[in-house]
Amino acid sequence: MEQLGFDPRYKTHRTLDISAENEGEKAKIAGWVVVHRDKSKIIFIKIRDATGIAQIVIKKDEVDDEFWEIAKNLTIESAISVDGIIVADSRSQTGAELKPSKITILQLSDTLPIDLSGIKTETMIETIFEHRELSIRRPESIAIFKIKHHIARAVRDFYVKNGFYEIWTPYILGTSTEGGAEMFKVDYFGQEGVLAQSCQFYKQSAIAVHEKVFGIIPSWRAEKSRTPKHVVEFHQIETEIAFGTDETIMQIQENLLYSVMKHVIEHCSDDLKVLGRELKLPSLPFKRITFEDAKKLGTKLVKEQLDMDEPEGDLSTPAETALSNHFEDPFFIIRFPTEIRGMYYDSDPNDDDITLSLDLVASEGIGELSSGGVRVTSPDKLIHRIKEKGYNPDSFKWYIDMFRYGGAPHAGFGLGFERLTRFITGVKHIRETIMYPRTPDYWSP
Amino acid sequence: MEQLGFDPRYKTHRTLDISAENEGEKAKIAGWVVVHRDKSKIIFIKIRDATGIAQIVIKKDEVDDEFWEIAKNLTIESAISVDGIIVADSRSQTGAELKPSKITILQLSDTLPIDLSGIKTETMIETIFEHRELSIRRPESIAIFKIKHHIARAVRDFYVKNGFYEIWTPYILGTSTEGGAEMFKVDYFGQEGVLAQSCQFYKQSAIAVHEKVFGIIPSWRAEKSRTPKHVVEFHQIETEIAFGTDETIMQIQENLLYSVMKHVIEHCSDDLKVLGRELKLPSLPFKRITFEDAKKLGTKLVKEQLDMDEPEGDLSTPAETALSNHFEDPFFIIRFPTEIRGMYYDSDPNDDDITLSLDLVASEGIGELSSGGVRVTSPDKLIHRIKEKGYNPDSFKWYIDMFRYGGAPHAGFGLGFERLTRFITGVKHIRETIMYPRTPDYWSP
Repeated sequence: MEQLGFDPRYKTHRTLDISAENEGEKAKIAGWVVVHRDKSKIIFIKIRDATGIAQIVIKKDEVDDEFWEIAKNLTIESAISVDGIIVADSRSQTGAELKPSKITILQLSDTLPIDLSGIKTETMIETIFEHRELSIRRPESIAIFKIKHHIARAVRDFYVKNGFYEIWTPYILGTSTEGGAEMFKVDYFGQEGVLAQSCQFYKQSAIAVHEKVFGIIPSWRAEKSRTPKHVVEFHQIETEIAFGTDETIMQIQENLLYSVMKHVIEHCSDDLKVLGRELKLPSLPFKRITFEDAKKLGTKLVKEQLDMDEPEGDLSTPAETALSNHFEDPFFIIRFPTEIRGMYYDSDPNDDDITLSLDLVASEGIGELSSGGVRVTSPDKLIHRIKEKGYNPDSFKWYIDMFRYGGAPHAGFGLGFERLTRFITGVKHIRETIMYPRTPDYWSP
Repeated sequence: MEQLGFDPRYKTHRTLDISAENEGEKAKIAGWVVVHRDKSKIIFIKIRDATGIAQIVIKKDEVDDEFWEIAKNLTIESAISVDGIIVADSRSQTGAELKPSKITILQLSDTLPIDLSGIKTETMIETIFEHRELSIRRPESIAIFKIKHHIARAVRDFYVKNGFYEIWTPYILGTSTEGGAEMFKVDYFGQEGVLAQSCQFYKQSAIAVHEKVFGIIPSWRAEKSRTPKHVVEFHQIETEIAFGTDETIMQIQENLLYSVMKHVIEHCSDDLKVLGRELKLPSLPFKRITFEDAKKLGTKLVKEQLDMDEPEGDLSTPAETALSNHFEDPFFIIRFPTEIRGMYYDSDPNDDDITLSLDLVASEGIGELSSGGVRVTSPDKLIHRIKEKGYNPDSFKWYIDMFRYGGAPHAGFGLGFERLTRFITGVKHIRETIMYPRTPDYWSP
């Protein structure tokens, strides 16, 4: 192996390296037993490592008693090393097999409390999270987490290629962003702080350093929403762009999604197969529909499909879901009314009732992925907006003052990292995309 | 520009693009005014964007009155767009200048409450953090944050190249890791939780998914340490390696540091120059000295240099600093006594009083960068260790049980991301490496 990071006493090769081109090489692999079939004179063992699965065959009449006993008594999930020689074998998927000369038990496993073989059953969901430290090893989970790794990689590559700088913002805040509701309270050396619901004010300040900034940044929302798209601890792909507009952030988002999906299709075909997910590249540019039109269409769809009446105000969840199912590809809803959007969204210069803000909505019923827009940078307008929303401008002093000293036009958005992972992997619940999710009901281990 | 992410109404070119090879092009740049010199008949303006600084020269007898008035009344940190034509000019650093035809004020700045021109003064440190949303724009800060971006990039590239997978671990924990001291308490829907001091238990569980895992992961420590190397909110470059040993994690760390420093030297020479930092690649492999020898040498050094007596137990901070100054390159202290190390460090098979654990210590007085070692994977040994440290094994049930089901030999470490940034940038205080640092005294904005 050319890669760093294994001790040769445990392994010299990855299962990936058991290939026809390495025929004749001595090799030691290590991993976990995933299949153990004892057919009286012959034992089949499959071993999982990070690069795949290798099969070992042990024939009773070819090995000594000690070797046979070790092979016979192995249990599922035991960690073992196998020494052997790589032998070409056209029947094998990789074109080669490891002919074993020695098995070393590194750590024997007790009988597992849950089945890790990967049979998908909806009813198993509670068991999966009860033994999360084990269920993360299920084939579906491994596939999800490998894809998630690749999503993060592709996201960062996209931003770096386009001249963005990564930033880190504070997590414990002394002041609130938009009021104090739905925030987790923290005891900060005897004072009351909160966990950041959004890094927005901080990333806005960072544009004067780097112009274009991004980060995959933790957020918390102490909200008792028990839906397939809510967890209380998550990450946002945060983006803020000096000298950018609503059009700029739509261009960034559609190209971001496209290049991430392309990367996943190219690098994770096996993992997508495990999940039964056929991922198809969306057409560019994404559709843009106004909030007004989205509301009309949503109202019509929920009436037809669910015989429900759409209430006034923001799009209801059923309407958003219906729209999400209606369109084939992700799309933007643009021009939200000022009344229902955050105080920091700037309005159309010709219509103060309409903001230059937008949501990115994923297809397939997944719904909202991101919110963003052009920011208010006039201190007076910001104070006016803050008051309109019923907050006290004094609580936002540093944020407002920032625009008195070198404010610049800018736009930005936050796109849910786990929501994006859910969309790309096609899994039902957002918590399946998280190793140790946090919900109102679940926070251990 | 080939990059995405600016609106042409504000800019079409970066200051970087004002080069001899683009001679004759029409261009619009945008950024912040950093220098404004009015010499009665001629005005010099320097404009900062993310890629550098461009100089504009306006001559009274070449422009109309309106243009002249706009140029004359500009203030430092005002955001402006400049239209013009790129003209080759051998006197310019980039070989070209933008000959301006129009200046548009995007947002005028009030007189700044602090000086951002970048004069380094120790006494300014309080002012810097009082107006942090402005001081992050100082040339030194910009250089630090650009280097930090590159460090993160190089760290992730190193891990990906070596077959590691990125993981995300929970931040709000219901149970403690090593006792409850020095943890920030969180109100979790009426129950008491804490902010993770370390993700160690979780990353250990993830090796069964990916074998080799990493992440740049937030940590919190509610510790009232007022030193140049402590903040209460920080990130660790977390690493855990199945089938790895103490030797493996040393190899990973020395190669990681080497490749990160090489990347920074290659990509950030201008930023290092701003900081007056001469970064020199260390020699590989790093020195390994035993805790016993380190203690002896540390004792001798603090006696000679400070006339202090080194106390029993772990290395004192003065001894660590003296050792850090003594060696030219970063080095490892290995084989720490079991008594003074965490319960999860495995011991030498031949000597239960010595752990297979180690610290990476940076040179130049910076001190400890990381701690790590081989982990205990025997449930019985772990229970014994937990009791020895005075904790209750029942509080660690899922963690202990994890090793009953598919435990495997492994080793890992956590390396302070901001400490590494401090070492590489050579700045005095760790908080200078953080946009919005958190200390016992400072948490706003």
